[in-house]
Amino acid sequence: MVSDDSGDTGVRSVTRALDLLALFDGPDRVFTVRELTDATGLAKTTVLRLVATLELRGLLWNHPDGHVCAGPGLLRWASLGRAAWELPAAARDVMRGLVAETAETANLYVRSATARVCVAKEEGPQNLRHHVPVGQPVPLWAGAASKILLQDGDPALLARVAALAPADTTPEALADQVAAAARDGYAISHGERELGVSGIAAPVRDSEGRVTAAIALGGPTVRFTAECIPGFVSAVAAAGARMSDIGLFPPPGGAAPQDAAPQETED
Amino acid sequence: MVSDDSGDTGVRSVTRALDLLALFDGPDRVFTVRELTDATGLAKTTVLRLVATLELRGLLWNHPDGHVCAGPGLLRWASLGRAAWELPAAARDVMRGLVAETAETANLYVRSATARVCVAKEEGPQNLRHHVPVGQPVPLWAGAASKILLQDGDPALLARVAALAPADTTPEALADQVAAAARDGYAISHGERELGVSGIAAPVRDSEGRVTAAIALGGPTVRFTAECIPGFVSAVAAAGARMSDIGLFPPPGGAAPQDAAPQETED
Repeated sequence: MVSDDSGDTGVRSVTRALDLLALFDGPDRVFTVRELTDATGLAKTTVLRLVATLELRGLLWNHPDGHVCAGPGLLRWASLGRAAWELPAAARDVMRGLVAETAETANLYVRSATARVCVAKEEGPQNLRHHVPVGQPVPLWAGAASKILLQDGDPALLARVAALAPADTTPEALADQVAAAARDGYAISHGERELGVSGIAAPVRDSEGRVTAAIALGGPTVRFTAECIPGFVSAVAAAGARMSDIGLFPPPGGAAPQDAAPQETED
Repeated sequence: MVSDDSGDTGVRSVTRALDLLALFDGPDRVFTVRELTDATGLAKTTVLRLVATLELRGLLWNHPDGHVCAGPGLLRWASLGRAAWELPAAARDVMRGLVAETAETANLYVRSATARVCVAKEEGPQNLRHHVPVGQPVPLWAGAASKILLQDGDPALLARVAALAPADTTPEALADQVAAAARDGYAISHGERELGVSGIAAPVRDSEGRVTAAIALGGPTVRFTAECIPGFVSAVAAAGARMSDIGLFPPPGGAAPQDAAPQETED
């Protein structure tokens, strides 16, 4: 199972290392090497080398009891992640206001390559909630927020996203949904990825009108009824407009780049 | 400059990806692809592939303005890192008490492979301070805390650590210092890695007596005088004993592993 990485410049190894790290999805998650081998399907020698490499960076930790667990080097990324992605207080207030108005959970998503990532959430008050883990890439081929985040995407991006979806999602169908969301100023989804889960999303734009994020309400479809949806839509759209005025994720460095934007290569 | 990774099972690529990510050491750090190419010495195609792979996991983000910056996926590891490595309140109190008693900065280190990582710090009140970034691996071949953390290490570990040090650090010299620290119950260093920086460290042990962490005072050598050192030593040793009683980093999963501990392979 050991791959020859020379053909893909080692990207496969990086992906494997990050997949291995992603198994540690909670502070109580610990594994033996055998469990990691079983969970990844990789050869034991490969797992040992990946663990050793990640341990050297502190991302995994060899607990004195023999288990492998989340490493202290994650603390470095913790402070970086929080500092880089912390919402302005005013934007957080908008999300709280949206939850207060709708009694549903509000999530803020950004696009990252062919995925979307929730960067902030405000839980709704009801007990039946749709859990979206902050910071974890989720598919861009489904869900209301995806239709918003794909608005500025070119056909090549749509094709790559559609290629990740189940067979019945074509680039053309996705493009139609994205165009509809752009026309309407919002998107609605019902059970596209998870049965019984609905979402309503609207754009957050930068000062040049580009979509930088999608603000969304998400919850059980049984609560996203025909009577509720119009109110939800106007609340989400208004929240998106307010967050656009506040201005999320300004250029971190200030200055414009001196060379072209990175191309997204295929993986 | 593109390496053939087939010989090392892709570990080099993983290391390169993590090195690239480590360039983003603050929320304001943004790079163009050209800057990343210059900073890493890697070929542009390699940088583009690594950036794309990291972006797919949300660890880097392609800002709409064309810069590459810290990605929203870091938020996932932020909550994991904090949850896994947050100190018990009682242990944090011990660190605060140590700072109050000595007026120096207290750091708590754990060993991760051939490095040590600061997992908690309490800043001292004085303006001249030695900055230790939380979560960032630092050398294990120097500093008072290293002599504590290496106490349970075997000769092979000492040899690997010494191999990372400047030429005048031999495994034998390191072993002597570690043995002296084990005998004394503390270690003192002056300017071993950074000129003018001193440290005093003592062990934090688990219920079976194994060293799980080192509690250390660190600051400018000018304040670690012959008059101050005895008081600092007893304060650090007492703090280590109190933290041992509290019990840091218990086995996260509870159960004992079903197979052998992972071997640390060479990188």
